[in-house]
Amino acid sequence: MKIEDVDLFYLSMPEVTDEADGSQDALLVRVSAGGFVGWGECEAAPLPSIAAFVCPKSHGVCRPVGESVIGQKLNDPADIARISALVGYNSMDLLQAPHILSGIEMALWDLLGRKLGEPVWHILGYDHSCAKTPYASLLFGDTPQTTLERARRAVKDGFSAAKFGWGPIGRGDARSDADQFAAAREGLGREADLMVDVGQIFGDNIAAAGERLPSLDEASVLWLEEPFHAGALAAYRALSEKGAKVRMAGGEAAHNFHMAAHLLEYANIGFVQIDCGRIGGIGPAKRVADLAVAQGATYVNHTFTSHLALSASMQPFAGLADSRICEYPAALKPLAVAITTNQIQRDGNGYICAPEAPGLGMEVNVSGIASYLVDTEIRVGGKLLYKTPAL
Amino acid sequence: MKIEDVDLFYLSMPEVTDEADGSQDALLVRVSAGGFVGWGECEAAPLPSIAAFVCPKSHGVCRPVGESVIGQKLNDPADIARISALVGYNSMDLLQAPHILSGIEMALWDLLGRKLGEPVWHILGYDHSCAKTPYASLLFGDTPQTTLERARRAVKDGFSAAKFGWGPIGRGDARSDADQFAAAREGLGREADLMVDVGQIFGDNIAAAGERLPSLDEASVLWLEEPFHAGALAAYRALSEKGAKVRMAGGEAAHNFHMAAHLLEYANIGFVQIDCGRIGGIGPAKRVADLAVAQGATYVNHTFTSHLALSASMQPFAGLADSRICEYPAALKPLAVAITTNQIQRDGNGYICAPEAPGLGMEVNVSGIASYLVDTEIRVGGKLLYKTPAL
Repeated sequence: MKIEDVDLFYLSMPEVTDEADGSQDALLVRVSAGGFVGWGECEAAPLPSIAAFVCPKSHGVCRPVGESVIGQKLNDPADIARISALVGYNSMDLLQAPHILSGIEMALWDLLGRKLGEPVWHILGYDHSCAKTPYASLLFGDTPQTTLERARRAVKDGFSAAKFGWGPIGRGDARSDADQFAAAREGLGREADLMVDVGQIFGDNIAAAGERLPSLDEASVLWLEEPFHAGALAAYRALSEKGAKVRMAGGEAAHNFHMAAHLLEYANIGFVQIDCGRIGGIGPAKRVADLAVAQGATYVNHTFTSHLALSASMQPFAGLADSRICEYPAALKPLAVAITTNQIQRDGNGYICAPEAPGLGMEVNVSGIASYLVDTEIRVGGKLLYKTPAL
Repeated sequence: MKIEDVDLFYLSMPEVTDEADGSQDALLVRVSAGGFVGWGECEAAPLPSIAAFVCPKSHGVCRPVGESVIGQKLNDPADIARISALVGYNSMDLLQAPHILSGIEMALWDLLGRKLGEPVWHILGYDHSCAKTPYASLLFGDTPQTTLERARRAVKDGFSAAKFGWGPIGRGDARSDADQFAAAREGLGREADLMVDVGQIFGDNIAAAGERLPSLDEASVLWLEEPFHAGALAAYRALSEKGAKVRMAGGEAAHNFHMAAHLLEYANIGFVQIDCGRIGGIGPAKRVADLAVAQGATYVNHTFTSHLALSASMQPFAGLADSRICEYPAALKPLAVAITTNQIQRDGNGYICAPEAPGLGMEVNVSGIASYLVDTEIRVGGKLLYKTPAL
């Protein structure tokens, strides 16, 4: 097959708020080759990502991503790796490139899986798709009481694991944060897995993050996610060595394999969280999963968008039974729900599995998303470089 | 002062080739505040960078860069750091953000320096601007003979240092590369500093890079630049420990302080090369220079564009006498030459200094660049988000 078309669709809710909720807009990618169609989703700012696909060349290694994708041969997984390497080299100086590549790479796997009649995880070498414990991905409330109610609601909704993130944590004192952690634990009950995500709020201030460790242990928090800037490797290591039970987690911002490897090798994290919509897609994410296994760390997906992205994010660790926890966006905006006709549902025991159907196993709801489509047009030097294509 | 306007100008040569020559297009930034104007230049793909400035918000920490800059207070260096931190946090998930911020941050320093009547290096804490040995930044020829001629030409042009990069290196065998290194040395003579840049050609293949070490030492090459992917820290370290005299160099792709710090701390590089047009501007570059001094490594600028960018790139290490080598683009495209009315000229001994004039000390040639301006227009959801402003 030859890659004939790559269509990019910018979708958005009518109103986008300041919440740290990545499901408020979306950049969908449709790839066509040999009569087959594959879909992917970037976890990225849509407009700069589109620009990275269509922009004029700046020089030999600052080329538009589209130039390294359209017209390429696509017959097996090695072709996907080859195309990714081509983008990596030809767009070396185009910072946004990995973010747009991510959705394209997913779509290539989806397309190839459909062609071969196999789920992507099987092409990746796993012989079955293991049951995962989905955790509800939730935001802390403005008050401990709201957090408590959200935790109770998650239990009522059938979750045995939940992660609370962002909100007021790190913006007040350690005692206020302790109240929040305790409220989350109280709402979830003693048995559930509880994780905490603080969204880099401490910069590289080890002391400030360290003050929160006792209350995190008190609430039996499994991991503390992104206490620091994603690059502050030494700060992560220092915090991990303070003797607390809670392990460090990070990796969502990794936009290539190496960045995730640094977190495992230098920062001493216990959980590496990969967003297939940012790291360059499923291939580099699988490489991180292999490294995590080798290092005795645990791979986790990072997913805060649609179930298309969720399926893609599950593929790299679908066959790893010991990586049992899986991020499951539990409060998606209507746009993100509308992207697929099917959803990855929890079974009677509350578990989820990567789909058995070919490719990513998800069906994009073309008519359902039409109303979210954002008309976009880019003109450079009198030429129309991009115009929203027909769905 | 309050930041009133940030204008972005996309300039390009009429034809852009596949050469690894970053001076073929440019993204200039003009900032206006309190009756003063400052200029900066991104070393970045112009269109995606413009998009990162104007794009609609995706969520709380994926906001357009413009939102964190326009309207901000600007009275002292702490304001520049504060604005940069604001962009870093608010645009955390917008990968292209550091590239557009870089040109803006430079322009803020330029503007502040003009307001205070001081050169930027003085505001940074240096009491004088040291003489640097400029090296001619050249591309390897297709044949050793062409490389030899280019080296001779550099000497004739008064250079006592030259760096050769890219071209055929790493694409053939080690012996062909050895011929190229020898030709460069022959052309330069025994006394000149010779550096080699291979543009990540070996990926993470330590053995392939290792085969080139003897011939690099044979040609007395001072540093080997970017043998590997910028993130392959362990590969850099392994190569640096193979017993060769040539030191490793890297860092041009660093888009934040941490990435450069990783190269110093984990990759054992001897020379850290920072492009102020990518790392987020002059502030984070100065932080890298301080770290390099502390670690016994040498700071070098990375500059392959205009003399506006060159001046910006010299500021962070202007006062470091031991960091004597300075990249000096010696074969700029006419566009990059046209950007400034003044140039950073070599003195009678062949040295260059960061300018003594206020700010970055460079005057942008507004009428000279008008013919290179690329009309650009971005519309999203029926709204005109960007249109090339008047120069």
